Amino acid sequence: MTTNSQVTVLGLGEMGSALARTLVDRGYRTTVWNRTATKAAPLAEAGATVAATALEAVAASPLVIICLLDSAAVETVLATIEPSVSGKVLVNVTSGSPGQARANADWARLRGAQYLDGGIMGDPPYVGTPNVTFSFSGDRDAFEAHEPTLRELGEIAYYGDDAGLAAVEFLAQVAVGYEFLIGLLHTLNLVNAEGVDVAKFAQRVAASIGGYVPLVNAFGTAISNGEYAPDLGSLNVQAALMDDLISHRESLGIEAVRMREVKMLMDRRIADGHGDQGLSSLFELLKASGPTSPTSTSGSAHAEGIEDHGRTPSEPPH
Amino acid sequence: MTTNSQVTVLGLGEMGSALARTLVDRGYRTTVWNRTATKAAPLAEAGATVAATALEAVAASPLVIICLLDSAAVETVLATIEPSVSGKVLVNVTSGSPGQARANADWARLRGAQYLDGGIMGDPPYVGTPNVTFSFSGDRDAFEAHEPTLRELGEIAYYGDDAGLAAVEFLAQVAVGYEFLIGLLHTLNLVNAEGVDVAKFAQRVAASIGGYVPLVNAFGTAISNGEYAPDLGSLNVQAALMDDLISHRESLGIEAVRMREVKMLMDRRIADGHGDQGLSSLFELLKASGPTSPTSTSGSAHAEGIEDHGRTPSEPPH
Repeated sequence: MTTNSQVTVLGLGEMGSALARTLVDRGYRTTVWNRTATKAAPLAEAGATVAATALEAVAASPLVIICLLDSAAVETVLATIEPSVSGKVLVNVTSGSPGQARANADWARLRGAQYLDGGIMGDPPYVGTPNVTFSFSGDRDAFEAHEPTLRELGEIAYYGDDAGLAAVEFLAQVAVGYEFLIGLLHTLNLVNAEGVDVAKFAQRVAASIGGYVPLVNAFGTAISNGEYAPDLGSLNVQAALMDDLISHRESLGIEAVRMREVKMLMDRRIADGHGDQGLSSLFELLKASGPTSPTSTSGSAHAEGIEDHGRTPSEPPH
Repeated sequence: MTTNSQVTVLGLGEMGSALARTLVDRGYRTTVWNRTATKAAPLAEAGATVAATALEAVAASPLVIICLLDSAAVETVLATIEPSVSGKVLVNVTSGSPGQARANADWARLRGAQYLDGGIMGDPPYVGTPNVTFSFSGDRDAFEAHEPTLRELGEIAYYGDDAGLAAVEFLAQVAVGYEFLIGLLHTLNLVNAEGVDVAKFAQRVAASIGGYVPLVNAFGTAISNGEYAPDLGSLNVQAALMDDLISHRESLGIEAVRMREVKMLMDRRIADGHGDQGLSSLFELLKASGPTSPTSTSGSAHAEGIEDHGRTPSEPPH
C-alpha cells in the first residue's frame, strides 16, 4: 500500500461521512475524525480508523480532506492541527468565500503544507458518482499528485493555482441561477396578472431554455474579444422593445426595475455611439462601474485559465 | 380553388414579403399591398396580384394578414380598409402590446370582422419552416377556419380567445430572456473581476443550462398549486447563501442590487413563518405587491388555457 492510498477526513457530517465512506469502499486506508465521536461509529464498522484528535488524524495521512460546517469551524480545526500540517496536502471542501480560501492557502504555505480549496455541486448520496462535481483550486502539484484519489469522489475540475477560484466558480454559478430564477418569478407574476396559466407558461419557458445555449457562448466570446455583434438585434432596435416591456409592466402595476436598468444601460451605449452593437456590449458599462482594475481587489491577478479534469457542471448547484 | 386558398397580405417589409412569398409558393391565390408599391414587384413576378390600395387588397380575400412596421401603421391602415372588413378575418402579426391587440379585436368586432393577433419568433428567411413559430390569440372560430393556411407559415400555437394573449406570450418570453441575460452579464462582470476567463465561464454556464429545466417546471407547478417545496433548499438555508453572494460582490465593489432584493424577499418570507419553503414561494410576495386582483386591470379575465397547435417555441425570440 502506497502513501497515496492513505487519506484522512476531518468532519463527519452528511457530506464528510459520504466522502469517507466512498474512500473506504474504494480501498483507501481512511482515517476519520469528528468533533463529536459518535458520528464516526458507522465508518469504524466499515473499516475506517477513528482518530481521537484532529491532530492525530492529520498525522496519519499525506492527504487531509476537511469537510466541516463552516469557515469558522475550519479556522478552529486548523489551529489544532497546526503542529502536524507540514508536508501535508490539505483539501478543504467546506463552503467559504474566495477570500477565506486564499487566507487558508497562505496559512498552509507558511507552515510547509499545500492547500486545495474545493466546492461541491451535488448531494451526499451521489458522492462517488458522476452526479457530484468537485471544483478545486490551489497548488497545482498537490492537485496533480492526488487527482486519482479526488476522482474517486465524483467528477472533478481544476480551476487554477489561485485557491480562491473554486469558491468564485461556486458563487458565480449559484448567482447565475438566482439571477435567472428571480427574473423568472417576476415574469411568472406578469403572466399570472394577465390571466395566463403559470404552470403551462413555465413549461414553455423550460422547453425554450436550450435555445439560450448558443447565446450564452456568444456572450462569453464577445466579451473576451471585445467585439459585440448585434446578438439579439442592435441596441437601437432592442431599446424600442425594452420600452414595450416596461410600459406593459407599468400598465399592470408590476415592477419593472430590472427592465429599466437594461433600458438605461442601452441608452447609455447608444449615446456613446454603440447602438449598432448587441446586448452583450452592456458588459462594458458594468465593468466600468466596478473596481478600476479588474483584479486589483481580488488577489487573483495570477488566476489561470480553468482546466477541466472531468465534465463541466451539468446541473445547477443545490 | 376555394375561398380558403385566397389570402391578402398587407405590408411587404422583410417579414411581410416572406409571408406573401411562402403563400404564393404553396399555391395560394395571394393579393399583396404595400404603401410604397416598388416592394411588390418581386412578388408580382412570383405570381401575386398587386392591389393598388389596401381597401382593394382586403376586398380580394376572406383572410387578411397584416404585417406592418408598428401599431401606428396598423391604426392608419385599419382606418383605410374599414369599408371592406365586414365578414373578413384579420390576422395582425405586427408587434404591439396586449392592450393594442384587444383594442384591435374590439374595433374588428364592431365592424363585423373577426380578429387574430399574432406574434412571430424567428427570422424572415425561415418563414415556412419549423424554425419560425407564430403565436395566435383571438377569435377561436377564425383560427380554426384558417389554421391550415396559417400552418403553411411555420409552427403555430393558439393561446385563447383573448386577443391580447399572443402579445403577452411574446413580451413574457422576451422578458425571461432579458432577465436571464442581464443577470448573466452581472455575473460575467463578477468572474471577470476575479480574473476568471469569461469565455470559458460562459461555456460552463451554457453546459449547465439544461439543469434548470426541471426547476423551471417545478416553479410553475409550485405556483399553480400554491405548494412551495424547498426547491433549492429551504429559505432558511438559502438566506445564508445569499449573504455569502452579497458580501462577495461587496468585497469586489460590484453591484448586488438583485441579490439584495432576493435576500429581502427571503427574509420577509422567513419572518412570515415560511422559512421551510423554497425560492418559488417568493412569488407570493411579488404577487401581493402587484395589482389587487390578478386580472382586474388586464382585461383578460376570460383568458383560457393555452393550447398548442404545434411545437412550443424552442428558441428564444430574436
